Amino acid sequence: MKIDGKPYRTIWPVEDGNAVEVIDQTRLPHRFETQRLSTMEEAAHAIRAMIVRGAPLIGATAAYGMAFALRDDASDEALDRAHDTLNATRPTAVNLRWALKRVRDAVRNRPREVRAAAALAEAAAICDEDVETCRRIGEHGLKILREAAARKAGAPLNVLTHCNAGWLACVDWGTALAPIYMAHDEGIPLSVWVDETRPRNQGASLTAFELGSHGVPHAVIADNAGGHLMQAGRVDLAIVGTDRVTRNGDVANKIGTYLKALAAKDNNVPFYVALPSSTIDWTLASGDLIPIEERSQSEVTQMTGRLPDGTIATVEITPPGSPAANPAFDVTPARLVTGFITERGFAPATENGLRSLFPEFSKT
Amino acid sequence: MKIDGKPYRTIWPVEDGNAVEVIDQTRLPHRFETQRLSTMEEAAHAIRAMIVRGAPLIGATAAYGMAFALRDDASDEALDRAHDTLNATRPTAVNLRWALKRVRDAVRNRPREVRAAAALAEAAAICDEDVETCRRIGEHGLKILREAAARKAGAPLNVLTHCNAGWLACVDWGTALAPIYMAHDEGIPLSVWVDETRPRNQGASLTAFELGSHGVPHAVIADNAGGHLMQAGRVDLAIVGTDRVTRNGDVANKIGTYLKALAAKDNNVPFYVALPSSTIDWTLASGDLIPIEERSQSEVTQMTGRLPDGTIATVEITPPGSPAANPAFDVTPARLVTGFITERGFAPATENGLRSLFPEFSKT
Repeated sequence: MKIDGKPYRTIWPVEDGNAVEVIDQTRLPHRFETQRLSTMEEAAHAIRAMIVRGAPLIGATAAYGMAFALRDDASDEALDRAHDTLNATRPTAVNLRWALKRVRDAVRNRPREVRAAAALAEAAAICDEDVETCRRIGEHGLKILREAAARKAGAPLNVLTHCNAGWLACVDWGTALAPIYMAHDEGIPLSVWVDETRPRNQGASLTAFELGSHGVPHAVIADNAGGHLMQAGRVDLAIVGTDRVTRNGDVANKIGTYLKALAAKDNNVPFYVALPSSTIDWTLASGDLIPIEERSQSEVTQMTGRLPDGTIATVEITPPGSPAANPAFDVTPARLVTGFITERGFAPATENGLRSLFPEFSKT
Repeated sequence: MKIDGKPYRTIWPVEDGNAVEVIDQTRLPHRFETQRLSTMEEAAHAIRAMIVRGAPLIGATAAYGMAFALRDDASDEALDRAHDTLNATRPTAVNLRWALKRVRDAVRNRPREVRAAAALAEAAAICDEDVETCRRIGEHGLKILREAAARKAGAPLNVLTHCNAGWLACVDWGTALAPIYMAHDEGIPLSVWVDETRPRNQGASLTAFELGSHGVPHAVIADNAGGHLMQAGRVDLAIVGTDRVTRNGDVANKIGTYLKALAAKDNNVPFYVALPSSTIDWTLASGDLIPIEERSQSEVTQMTGRLPDGTIATVEITPPGSPAANPAFDVTPARLVTGFITERGFAPATENGLRSLFPEFSKT
């Protein structure tokens, strides 16, 4: 997507594949800065520190991290070490594990001298495929938005989203936001309610930045507001991304998603989850088995923003000595999900629904 | 309650009743400062700017505002003007209207020369009665907490609350927090999950400050986290305050309350609402008739806190140009409420339940 008219991906190779550049997402929306990652450790740090975030982009960054590790040491031991280090950076998103497995499968049983190049090629393929996957998610979601807009008789379609499942969370396009961009581009009048998504404010910072950069009408709201807006008939549908979907259709996503899904159900608002199939964890029967990351208290007790003079500052918002708790994800039961929007189209949030779209996994 | 060992109310008369002092709640938890209000306009400004907030304290402050207006001009016209000005400061809490009516009823049909003194006496009575009412709410709620704690076999009772319905919202004690203080004081082990309550952070600032000052174990959480904690069995019950309850038991309270009530219902967590009977609006049949205040966008786009050097600063957290929406309250349907804790005891969240506790309103 474009920033100030210039097309960007969130990650791109430089220095003949010896490094990648990424957009530093901890600085948005206040600064647009890129960071160069040229070692496995730098890639791991970028994931842990959420310089890159979003399930698909985490996977892509980890794949490049594997390639850098193999460039420095192509042994099986180095391969395992890189895999384990990167796999431990974030526990909840399953795309990370999926991408690491893809790179490992691409290089194991191959001579050491070709491993680094093979890993680099695989990482590039993961990125290119992610772009195409997200484009298809966008096209399938667009059909749903077109139908919903047709029922609005020309009034703007009001879509609510949580956290950031836009192009910044992926390599390009995004998952939940891809259909929104396409609908906007083809002239469907719409407006997006952007949950600010405390504690890290990915909505207020990243989603609002993305939508504003692309000219999509939107309004930032406190995470508390979505239920009231649904009660008032001011939300036509909700679309969110996900970090892991278990095979029964339960959805792990950014903390607070479950609350919005409850409100959507209570007010008959369709609640869609957009995802690439790499986000489906066929090995888990249900969402209660998904590990939920507990992050630093400081994400709750502090807030970063711009001072009036433009400098970026972090303020403490809680009383000295008040502790905080910070679970980063929750699980939305499949019963609250209207359906999944995938690169192969729509699926109901059931095991049969997922398997019918992805029959190659039926034996898993 | 006490701050640094010194007992306080949130509002107290000074200068022989020619002024009141209030705790400036826009400065907490970073600074403990008081403000002196000596005119009706200063009282109105304090309510509008949320220097004082919380339904009972808004009512008490407005009552003093009426007294100051009558001191300056005791005519019927001045009485009406003060009533209307103060009544327009905040639309959702019904205690404001209730307190204004009490003062007006106490002075109308009386000679002008006694009106100011009568209004001042009525304002003081409203404050004293509020303290006693909240104490009784605390005692009735304490019974519920004792029973819940008995089922925990010595493990701490985990209570979730939203916004601030503590002593800072009232004159003393609080509504939702009164039972918690009493339970803590009698040695019941408990811990409070404090919703930070964006956009104005009354939980992270006021509730955490209150609980910390009193030594009650607590942890601040993002508003998004409560549903997950309930799913994980880490919330035994929820207690919140309210700004207006309609006669069928619907509950207007700080934005986001509805989402927590939905999650409580979905996880069989009891969800209590604590209130003085002055918060019941017998004139409204249901919650959809309650006016919902829309407040400034800047409450969403900005956040105030302490810089590392201790100075207080306000930072912008959204991208330049991204608009925001800021509904300040939502309505929790009675079907999601386990019951009301009032100064006369527990009532189911139904019209019959409320009328059986307050039969004097049965003809309203």
